[in-house]
Amino acid sequence: MASAVLKVAGWCGLVFRRQTHTDIVTGLSRFSRLTVLRTHSTTATLHQGLPGSLWKLGRLNHIAIAVPDMEKATALYRDVLGATVSDKVPLPEHGVYTVFVELGNTKLELLHPLGEKSPIAGFLQKNKSGGMHHICIEVDNINAAIADLKAKNIRTLSAEPRIGAHGKPVMFLHPKDCDGVLVELEEA
Amino acid sequence: MASAVLKVAGWCGLVFRRQTHTDIVTGLSRFSRLTVLRTHSTTATLHQGLPGSLWKLGRLNHIAIAVPDMEKATALYRDVLGATVSDKVPLPEHGVYTVFVELGNTKLELLHPLGEKSPIAGFLQKNKSGGMHHICIEVDNINAAIADLKAKNIRTLSAEPRIGAHGKPVMFLHPKDCDGVLVELEEA
Repeated sequence: MASAVLKVAGWCGLVFRRQTHTDIVTGLSRFSRLTVLRTHSTTATLHQGLPGSLWKLGRLNHIAIAVPDMEKATALYRDVLGATVSDKVPLPEHGVYTVFVELGNTKLELLHPLGEKSPIAGFLQKNKSGGMHHICIEVDNINAAIADLKAKNIRTLSAEPRIGAHGKPVMFLHPKDCDGVLVELEEA
Repeated sequence: MASAVLKVAGWCGLVFRRQTHTDIVTGLSRFSRLTVLRTHSTTATLHQGLPGSLWKLGRLNHIAIAVPDMEKATALYRDVLGATVSDKVPLPEHGVYTVFVELGNTKLELLHPLGEKSPIAGFLQKNKSGGMHHICIEVDNINAAIADLKAKNIRTLSAEPRIGAHGKPVMFLHPKDCDGVLVELEEA
């Protein structure tokens, strides 16, 4: 079966061959196929393996950690672990205080409830010591991503994207459809 | 109080001024001090703010996600979200199967139990849909990091580092001392 160029996976610098029926039957992952192609031909054109997709997944923007004591959590990362941290910023429209911890390639987002209707209050009731609340992965086109994911039966936590903590459109995917992980997509 | 150069924070390309008693009293974070220094002098030498430290925190190596169904989880990231994933690798000495999901700047490590004594079996009993299990942050000197953290009353899950999934020394910090998050340090 002939392969077709569908989309350049620019973020990783590689383009993969379209997944064909033969590939599915052999059970080889893209990673394996890439290795095979590299072994047998140095001139092979590799193509993206997501047929018909009009969006692409990007880098990890942050890991959000809900904490019961923001000053203690900030001190852990700043004074004990030696990381660079931001000031504490109140985001009343999101019901949280945030502190960002820089890790070079990405960041941690410490969250503490602000107000009576904070969306992380329930999480901290169940996890009194705190814990990982969600991960945020960038996408290049959030509306295309949402339409595609809904068509693939991935549920979202709201009908439309909203503006997130960074002033960009975000959407949360249902943890039940993502291995128990709350996944936030943010348009980069 | 005079500041002193202690260590270059190479991973973020910045060196911070040593935290002095005055700084503590004013309550300014390093981030704020950095801004102040940049505002008042373009020639100021900035220094690392972790007095006496012989190690430094690096980049986020991975986020580990425990999953009840490895094939389904791999398909989510590969076929639905369009990420590049590795083959499934059994690590019997760690009691897990692993699949790595590339996100450009870092990776997800999907974990599924291998064997009867898998360290993630209990986690999946409590979190039947799966969930975020730990985060792994790199350090440049794990023995210096462990000695320093123990002196600062951060508990570790073993007395000595062990060799992790990447063949490098790793150590887990107690979640109770890290805002409910299981933190793995890996020597880069």
